Amino acid sequence: MSTIIRHAGSKILSGAVEANGMVYVAGTVADRLPATVRAQTEEILAKIDALLAAAGSSKSKIVSAQIWVADIRLRDEMNEAWLAWVDPHNLPARACVQAALANPQMLVEIAVTAVK
Amino acid sequence: MSTIIRHAGSKILSGAVEANGMVYVAGTVADRLPATVRAQTEEILAKIDALLAAAGSSKSKIVSAQIWVADIRLRDEMNEAWLAWVDPHNLPARACVQAALANPQMLVEIAVTAVK
Amino acid sequence: MSTIIRHAGSKILSGAVEANGMVYVAGTVADRLPATVRAQTEEILAKIDALLAAAGSSKSKIVSAQIWVADIRLRDEMNEAWLAWVDPHNLPARACVQAALANPQMLVEIAVTAVK
Repeated sequence: MSTIIRHAGSKILSGAVEANGMVYVAGTVADRLPATVRAQTEEILAKIDALLAAAGSSKSKIVSAQIWVADIRLRDEMNEAWLAWVDPHNLPARACVQAALANPQMLVEIAVTAVK
Repeated sequence: MSTIIRHAGSKILSGAVEANGMVYVAGTVADRLPATVRAQTEEILAKIDALLAAAGSSKSKIVSAQIWVADIRLRDEMNEAWLAWVDPHNLPARACVQAALANPQMLVEIAVTAVK
Repeated sequence: MSTIIRHAGSKILSGAVEANGMVYVAGTVADRLPATVRAQTEEILAKIDALLAAAGSSKSKIVSAQIWVADIRLRDEMNEAWLAWVDPHNLPARACVQAALANPQMLVEIAVTAVK
């Protein structure tokens, strides 16, 4: 049987789950609110770095990313923080759409899947 | 070549697909409508139990879940049904955002990925 | 270490990523705009065919699909193009919800995951 390793659990979810050579990172939001979408994206990407490291992976091994922005017009500013962070030689498949998030101060949420 | 096994097909999709040691469960909605978001979530989670069982998996082996609620203010009530259902020692990575669903009576839709 | 192969990169994302026997295709949109949701869906599905072929896969090996429509009332017309395209003996798990997309002329966006 395949081993499943779970990280950074809250009461309702795990922050990241390792299984079958992959790492599944939960939809991640900023804790420091209110903040600009750029600052929120930077905080989220730092949290994703830490979750991937805890699971033995890294941003260079991300295969896909899902990004939700609270207003699609925030996409360009979010993308500036994204571009400053991603490994340009190892870009994930990505989708970015608009969605209302759990708290109206949250402007962006990001989930990723990576190879371990 | 990897074997792909498909379950519970409709005309447009499969309810669940097994491949490479994983089970991919489609975005699942309630059939009993109208109903409260709590009742819809309970019905959906029972359907997911059945789909996972058909594919040789279970809720304790879910690695990630995507939840869409028709109004983000329904998240707390959905979470009560979620918390009553999940295996607290094996919580999935999860994302929950707001989205309009196929039928205005549908208040919640859930998709999951599990280890087989 | 698992090899990761990336296809059709732009400045911010890869169009498709191969890893661990799977192919992850990015959220894909139409280039020919404005156009009906049917025409956009047809263009997107042709792009997905090409991305899957480049990664050594095909539509018959898709395990899951995520579809976003800019207005949920466009779902029926999108589904007509979907039904004309999918392999009826190998239907993916699928979720389709409403979301505002990057450009207001974009009426549909589709991401898929396939076995290689």
